Amino acid sequence: MIVIKSGVTSPNGFLASGIKAGIKRSGRADLALLYSEVPAVAAAAFTTNRFQASPVKVSKDHIKAKKHQAIIVNSGNANCANGSIGDKDALKMTEFIGNALFLDKREVLVASTGIIGAYLPLAKIEKAIPELAGELSGDHGTSFAEAIMTTDTVKKELAVKVKLGKATVTIGGACKGVGMIYPLMKTERHATMLCFLTTDAAITKKMLAASLDEAIGDSFNMISVDGDMSTNDSCFIMANGLAKNREINSRGSDYGKFTESLKFVMSELSKKLVRDGEGATKFVEILVTGAKSESDAKAIARKISTSNLLKCAVCGEDPNWGRIVAAAGSSGVNFDPDKVDVYLGNLKALSDGASVKGLDKNRAHKLFTKRDVHIKVDLKSGSHEATAWTCDFSKEYVAINSEYST
Amino acid sequence: MIVIKSGVTSPNGFLASGIKAGIKRSGRADLALLYSEVPAVAAAAFTTNRFQASPVKVSKDHIKAKKHQAIIVNSGNANCANGSIGDKDALKMTEFIGNALFLDKREVLVASTGIIGAYLPLAKIEKAIPELAGELSGDHGTSFAEAIMTTDTVKKELAVKVKLGKATVTIGGACKGVGMIYPLMKTERHATMLCFLTTDAAITKKMLAASLDEAIGDSFNMISVDGDMSTNDSCFIMANGLAKNREINSRGSDYGKFTESLKFVMSELSKKLVRDGEGATKFVEILVTGAKSESDAKAIARKISTSNLLKCAVCGEDPNWGRIVAAAGSSGVNFDPDKVDVYLGNLKALSDGASVKGLDKNRAHKLFTKRDVHIKVDLKSGSHEATAWTCDFSKEYVAINSEYST
Repeated sequence: MIVIKSGVTSPNGFLASGIKAGIKRSGRADLALLYSEVPAVAAAAFTTNRFQASPVKVSKDHIKAKKHQAIIVNSGNANCANGSIGDKDALKMTEFIGNALFLDKREVLVASTGIIGAYLPLAKIEKAIPELAGELSGDHGTSFAEAIMTTDTVKKELAVKVKLGKATVTIGGACKGVGMIYPLMKTERHATMLCFLTTDAAITKKMLAASLDEAIGDSFNMISVDGDMSTNDSCFIMANGLAKNREINSRGSDYGKFTESLKFVMSELSKKLVRDGEGATKFVEILVTGAKSESDAKAIARKISTSNLLKCAVCGEDPNWGRIVAAAGSSGVNFDPDKVDVYLGNLKALSDGASVKGLDKNRAHKLFTKRDVHIKVDLKSGSHEATAWTCDFSKEYVAINSEYST
Repeated sequence: MIVIKSGVTSPNGFLASGIKAGIKRSGRADLALLYSEVPAVAAAAFTTNRFQASPVKVSKDHIKAKKHQAIIVNSGNANCANGSIGDKDALKMTEFIGNALFLDKREVLVASTGIIGAYLPLAKIEKAIPELAGELSGDHGTSFAEAIMTTDTVKKELAVKVKLGKATVTIGGACKGVGMIYPLMKTERHATMLCFLTTDAAITKKMLAASLDEAIGDSFNMISVDGDMSTNDSCFIMANGLAKNREINSRGSDYGKFTESLKFVMSELSKKLVRDGEGATKFVEILVTGAKSESDAKAIARKISTSNLLKCAVCGEDPNWGRIVAAAGSSGVNFDPDKVDVYLGNLKALSDGASVKGLDKNRAHKLFTKRDVHIKVDLKSGSHEATAWTCDFSKEYVAINSEYST
């Protein structure tokens, strides 16, 4: 596998565009389109939030179609909590693209991100469709990645190439979302991070969904910026087969290679989100090992990743590891506290549930002065592990989020 | 029921003290003692965190004794994650008081609050015992309330008097804890908020535990400052019978009156904690009504109370109610989003799951400029309700918690 630059338009046959439709008051780009020149199979994962945004409802219905060719995305408005008007508006967005690109509306998926509870300026979107479709290009992957941004400070895109038999398959992706980030997405059931993945691999719709499901559990579902789960989180992948590999239709070695590559792309994109987390100055990786089950390891790692106290300590470069202990213990997972070791980097702070006497506080502090902070919790009770990623909690986070809608 | 000033020493027969033992580097009072002149029955609730501080382990064992007369409390050190040394130290604290007051150590309870993972300066505590016992007085309830404080900016105490038959029963209390506040305590099983309650009511140990259990579910277990659950949360009550009421030994009308009064004291103390929450500038009350069950209502209210995004919005006086919707939907409770109404004060923002058109934004903003912000979520699916309390999330919170241990 090799990592290449660019993003959603790297695989063969994908075009994209991103333009200014006037949805955002800032005047920045806010409408984006992703298009496969040939029919593709698609899979998607959506937020498990009980309140689901209208575009999530429409995409959950449309994803049932056999083939898809386009995804329309707006930023600046979540089209959530808008009742039946919101549902109609989201459906209209797919119809606009269907009409412009000669597709059935069910072959078009839709996503929105922005403020909740404001009605969509549909007339502005309709007016912008000719430009949006007209700008479609293999060179506009970056415009796409920019137009989906909200409080993001940098665009997030990536692509990799992997050999499957004699064919070279490319997987590309772009994502956004640096606040209200604590996704828990389920494939075709239930993620405001948005992620758009493209590949020219030949793969069945069923295997594509399985691959996305595997990859999402170890990537987007393991990140937190603020512990707030969005109503709009969505992750889409389209596979158009233009790489001409032997179609992946079962869990063989090609499926394994494809899934590993997809997992890599999604993990890297997840980490980009966390590094750009609202107000973030630090990146924190939390590894939980020695768990009885993967779900135990994930639950503990995820709980630690949402500890406001730990995140403030990281911001202040204060190695107050007791906050890791308190968070782990409140995860709801049953484990023996007297067996637990906690490491800051490679420095052991807790050993068999007791604080290490004579802990080198200067060394501990130094580890917390780095841009990347590594924490390990070893339960010493099993062979399962999980990694979660978060950022620190800074005054800037509060500033960003106390001034959003007004 | 009438509310009186003072706190833990208001009921007959209770003495208290609070002194400086040198545990806190700040030099403030850090050691406290509560004493009943006659044997009392006691009940307690402790944190459900998997990591339990040593004083929690010791008190969970000692609470099994039939009678109790004293509680020793230190601030500045949580005595948590200190392994068997910590356990021995906590036990020693009860022995010190036992020796000083001619009690069996099992008649003494213990609580600690402060940094996790630092060993207790036991020699300093031992040295301070004569002064601590010597200062015991019916006038030192306030000294007690001050010595248990950590990042608290004000002491929190309260007492009420209630008529039971011909007798007048007094219930007093003091509590501390304005960070790492998201308690979920269980009676005699498993709260760093600390709460100490005293009463001169005559009541059996069993009924006292039942009453505490009822009251805690609607008070301390419904507050959040930062969503971080402590390893040390503990709530104690001692009842010494000196009011000479007919002993409460079943769920009759006296039990009901006593429990209502206890619930009032505990709710008021809970709200005092939230109002003094680290960095707090606002107080937020979240009422969830129309739920299918009380547990559903509590789960949703508690989830909303931990939304960092909502708490930042409140800080910025920004009525961004979409964040309430997102938080409610991520509570894990199954409800029909299309039925939900959301109110800011008495202003309806969401009606039947759809944002109210023409919402008076100035009025909404004005409601958020007040010191107390009221939010109501009506699920319109049942007859159960619950209230949770939280504070806003300010830059000051981050400042306080990025500089704690260093």
